[in-house]
Amino acid sequence: MEVFEAVRTMLAVRRYQDRPVPEAVLRRILEAGRLTGSAMNTQPWHFIVVGDRETLRRLGALAQTGPYIAQAPLAIVVAVDKSRFAVSDASRAIQSMLLTAWADGVGSNWVGFGGLEEVKALLKIPAKVDVLAILPFGYPVGVVGRGKKQRKPLAAVAHRERYGQPFE
Amino acid sequence: MEVFEAVRTMLAVRRYQDRPVPEAVLRRILEAGRLTGSAMNTQPWHFIVVGDRETLRRLGALAQTGPYIAQAPLAIVVAVDKSRFAVSDASRAIQSMLLTAWADGVGSNWVGFGGLEEVKALLKIPAKVDVLAILPFGYPVGVVGRGKKQRKPLAAVAHRERYGQPFE
Repeated sequence: MEVFEAVRTMLAVRRYQDRPVPEAVLRRILEAGRLTGSAMNTQPWHFIVVGDRETLRRLGALAQTGPYIAQAPLAIVVAVDKSRFAVSDASRAIQSMLLTAWADGVGSNWVGFGGLEEVKALLKIPAKVDVLAILPFGYPVGVVGRGKKQRKPLAAVAHRERYGQPFE
Repeated sequence: MEVFEAVRTMLAVRRYQDRPVPEAVLRRILEAGRLTGSAMNTQPWHFIVVGDRETLRRLGALAQTGPYIAQAPLAIVVAVDKSRFAVSDASRAIQSMLLTAWADGVGSNWVGFGGLEEVKALLKIPAKVDVLAILPFGYPVGVVGRGKKQRKPLAAVAHRERYGQPFE
């Protein structure tokens, strides 16, 4: 799938088929994260691949906005070093991973920002790193309404030459 | 270009041909940012498109790590609302834009984290938003060494089931 087509059509997927994500697809997703650029090439990220059913169930119970993680065949927990640009860098790596998965027909969604401290204990993540996101992965159930998105119009977010001059 | 191929080959480009980026390509890059997902769909980003030569020159002078902005035919300054997830969300949008540009043969690099306060005055950016990055865009000078990257090996960044068990 072409890059822009993937960006244009990618949507959050919260229901997954009972079908494993092949190891080759998983490896490509991880490679996409690993190969992403970062500030001063620090690569301040850690990807914890979770396929164990009981661990997935517990992740779903801990993540306040992501109970559906419990039904996913796979999740990647993204943790970051406590450095200045780590959140930006890892967010870029996450976007690379989500787009790569989507191009292979695999859906996901960024789950984060609540209950993530308990996730550290569950996965033996050391104190020196923070959990940024949990990314469940799986083949979508049903037809995904590709590209139907609610977004602000371009003129509301893009400006020409200076802020406040809408880009039409 | 396929998504993973774009992720795998994309490199920082800091020297640009004296050749404009077509309006259609620019619009696709902006659309890629606009259509990116964000926490609770808040879309906390602003894209300021700069093509004016004098403004580009001044951006290059202000950005401590990006003097080459002065030679680019185009730059997009990315600003974010002062909200909790805005840096993550805008970093994802930036990755979508960089990959979309790269698939069209256009190179860029994330310039940020120094001198950005002065950029706000130059571009009339209000106090309520922060500048996150300046993205110069242009066709690369010379052959870009596609895919030759220095990255940690997979086993150093990927773990299986819990932190500290290398993914081999």
